Amino acid sequence: MKFEQSVPVQWIAEYIGATIIGDTNRTATGINEIHKVTPGDISFVDNEKYFNNCLMSAATIIIINKEVACPEGKTLLLHPDPFSGYVKLVKYFRPFEPAYKMISDSAVIGEGTHLQPGVFVGNHVRIGNNCLIHPNVTIYDNTIIGDNVIIHSGTVLGADAFYFKRRKEREVQYDKMESCGRVIIEDDVEIGAGCAIDKGVSGDTIIGRGTKLDNHIHIGHGAVIGKNCLFAGQVGIGGKAIIEDEVILWGQVGVSKDLTIGKGAVVYAQSGVGQTIEGGKIYFGSPVDDARTKMRELNWVKRIPEIWEKLTAK
Amino acid sequence: MKFEQSVPVQWIAEYIGATIIGDTNRTATGINEIHKVTPGDISFVDNEKYFNNCLMSAATIIIINKEVACPEGKTLLLHPDPFSGYVKLVKYFRPFEPAYKMISDSAVIGEGTHLQPGVFVGNHVRIGNNCLIHPNVTIYDNTIIGDNVIIHSGTVLGADAFYFKRRKEREVQYDKMESCGRVIIEDDVEIGAGCAIDKGVSGDTIIGRGTKLDNHIHIGHGAVIGKNCLFAGQVGIGGKAIIEDEVILWGQVGVSKDLTIGKGAVVYAQSGVGQTIEGGKIYFGSPVDDARTKMRELNWVKRIPEIWEKLTAK
Amino acid sequence: MKFEQSVPVQWIAEYIGATIIGDTNRTATGINEIHKVTPGDISFVDNEKYFNNCLMSAATIIIINKEVACPEGKTLLLHPDPFSGYVKLVKYFRPFEPAYKMISDSAVIGEGTHLQPGVFVGNHVRIGNNCLIHPNVTIYDNTIIGDNVIIHSGTVLGADAFYFKRRKEREVQYDKMESCGRVIIEDDVEIGAGCAIDKGVSGDTIIGRGTKLDNHIHIGHGAVIGKNCLFAGQVGIGGKAIIEDEVILWGQVGVSKDLTIGKGAVVYAQSGVGQTIEGGKIYFGSPVDDARTKMRELNWVKRIPEIWEKLTAK
Repeated sequence: MKFEQSVPVQWIAEYIGATIIGDTNRTATGINEIHKVTPGDISFVDNEKYFNNCLMSAATIIIINKEVACPEGKTLLLHPDPFSGYVKLVKYFRPFEPAYKMISDSAVIGEGTHLQPGVFVGNHVRIGNNCLIHPNVTIYDNTIIGDNVIIHSGTVLGADAFYFKRRKEREVQYDKMESCGRVIIEDDVEIGAGCAIDKGVSGDTIIGRGTKLDNHIHIGHGAVIGKNCLFAGQVGIGGKAIIEDEVILWGQVGVSKDLTIGKGAVVYAQSGVGQTIEGGKIYFGSPVDDARTKMRELNWVKRIPEIWEKLTAK
Repeated sequence: MKFEQSVPVQWIAEYIGATIIGDTNRTATGINEIHKVTPGDISFVDNEKYFNNCLMSAATIIIINKEVACPEGKTLLLHPDPFSGYVKLVKYFRPFEPAYKMISDSAVIGEGTHLQPGVFVGNHVRIGNNCLIHPNVTIYDNTIIGDNVIIHSGTVLGADAFYFKRRKEREVQYDKMESCGRVIIEDDVEIGAGCAIDKGVSGDTIIGRGTKLDNHIHIGHGAVIGKNCLFAGQVGIGGKAIIEDEVILWGQVGVSKDLTIGKGAVVYAQSGVGQTIEGGKIYFGSPVDDARTKMRELNWVKRIPEIWEKLTAK
Repeated sequence: MKFEQSVPVQWIAEYIGATIIGDTNRTATGINEIHKVTPGDISFVDNEKYFNNCLMSAATIIIINKEVACPEGKTLLLHPDPFSGYVKLVKYFRPFEPAYKMISDSAVIGEGTHLQPGVFVGNHVRIGNNCLIHPNVTIYDNTIIGDNVIIHSGTVLGADAFYFKRRKEREVQYDKMESCGRVIIEDDVEIGAGCAIDKGVSGDTIIGRGTKLDNHIHIGHGAVIGKNCLFAGQVGIGGKAIIEDEVILWGQVGVSKDLTIGKGAVVYAQSGVGQTIEGGKIYFGSPVDDARTKMRELNWVKRIPEIWEKLTAK
């Protein structure tokens, strides 16, 4: 997320209790986890394995847990626990705002849009024109919905990212990453009943224009779904997955986080996509393979007894 | 769906901008997609592959995009885009009626039936006697529920069919088929929490008497589920599937559209049913096979290294 | 469940129409199905296969459908249909209490806990301190929630167990087991959007301290989930499963009922756990196997054509 106005690094250091390494007069214009950083952002890193990655990233201010040389144009914030420092900032810049009514006064709702009863619309939500939101839909704060969007009952837009840091040595082991990203639903999208689309950790979860989702679809934090995709019932998409335009996923397909499905790929029902796959092809299986290869494999499996017989007959 | 009164074909032709071929004095008594047509119905066809099928069907009035000979007893409506003509009629005969309260005044609710708070009951819904509808259930317009039915929280009955026509040449590629069918829940059914049962495109989605559904079950448009079936959690059923009586589906089973599962079949957890399967048998696998055959197959797979060894030892 | 005060066996016998075998002065202090019985409990058995199991159990009062010798320290209640006798008692001791408002007057809600709009809180619910319950969550009667718990929208806690007795000879074949158990959510748990956690049949469904559940997770009746577990989206857990501490289940994993997953086990996405598995290991497949073994198996399958070639080339 970007801030409404820039924030001096000295204030940040003091607020989270960090020591400044490098230029103390810099200002931050936003906060983002490493996968989404842009110039001006605060980010964090706490694992030496990723130090280089983070120090070379677009981030301007980096919360880090080891004294290292400060790269040109950046400021480092030395902190014993960068994760908690980062989370403290997210909570400051995007605090939870309790709601006391079903439709927030700060929500902007377009012309010709109809909200059925029981719909919750959080703070700072923007809904475009000619949308139809069916009963008992929940739209968390900061969600943005375009024009001509239909959302069916029970669907939840903008719940928190499922992202935790494990502290194995503690009794309660998981620390929650606070999310400051949003959900963005582009024009002409239809979302079925009982879907759950999480907000991004710091960037946006996007459902591209003209995409249609069936019932019970789960979309993880920060996933970016292209235009004119079609996902059948009970499909699950992991966090930060990129699904390009015109991808068709049949029922109960599972897609892992942090991968890409290329444009126009078709994935048959119940398949599991664990790694990036090319567009323009048809896939099947868990883990997924080229559909024809997989079908041939299934046929070969049926022929094992024949192989055995041939082998032992000799 | 059937109309409340019959409609002259001349009005229909004018309303959608079609040219009449054949008898201009005919009247329509209903509108149905090809899978559900009965005499008196309007239907449509736009793919030459299905022309014959539709022209030979029970439909009385057919919207078609090519000038062909009009079969005896029918009237054709020549239209450049039969799909959009059909959809225009569906919207006319079953317009969306916005709701402004949680329980519609036009809903009929039986004796001894209790609706918990947060339940939405749409227009023209009928609920029988001695039902218990738990909080935050959504019941769309025109749904019919029998006696002694229990519906758990978060469940959605009657959301729109997931049915779109692709127009690959356009920027927004999918055109929505408007649904005018209903959901019918027969007596003594229990439906778990967070289920989603879509309405039929033009016919009815039916859950047969005494059937019990666990949580998170997705039933596609126009599926017909028999009596005394048992579906465990997270089962998904595609559109227009026919599940006969006493079928047992274990958890996370997926069933494709347009197929039949025979009476008394049992399908083990996580299986995928992609084609019609006979009743009275036990199935397993994705794609599904006879459970014993599948188990033997799994055992043979484990023996491949032994085969390899035998083969290479010689 | 335990009763608020003990109940004379003579009253019970009369209420359900049973004949007492053994001590007629005994009192019952609770009612539990056989998997959860403790001393003082009423339980039932109607299948000779389980007679011994039940007669040797901790149950003090046993509803049974055959005249057998009464074990020392117990009282038997002879009844033609023990299941329906038992269900009649459950309904008496835990009757359904209709709600007429979204938050019950008998609910106890802790300090610093915020309920967003559209949340239903049933009778006798207890929610601890500093919890955040997002919009349109449903919390059935008697649920207990600890401190620092976050529950996302659309989630349902405490729906009925999916547990039916089949009577094949009848037109409506399934008789519902009434549930008198509860859902208990321990401190520091976070539950995603659209989850469904059923109450126990007579005991409690427990989500252990610090456990985090993603969206669309289904937890069956009486399952006991340990501390610091992590379940990704669309995981399904069958009734009475025991998941020990620190278990990680990736997306769409299915777990059968009545089994144990040992401490610290990791199960990869889309796997199916059908039997008890040891802790501290990594699993994959449907049915599940050691992940490495499974991966090797998948590689061997790809080599079948090579085997065939080698075999036929000779």
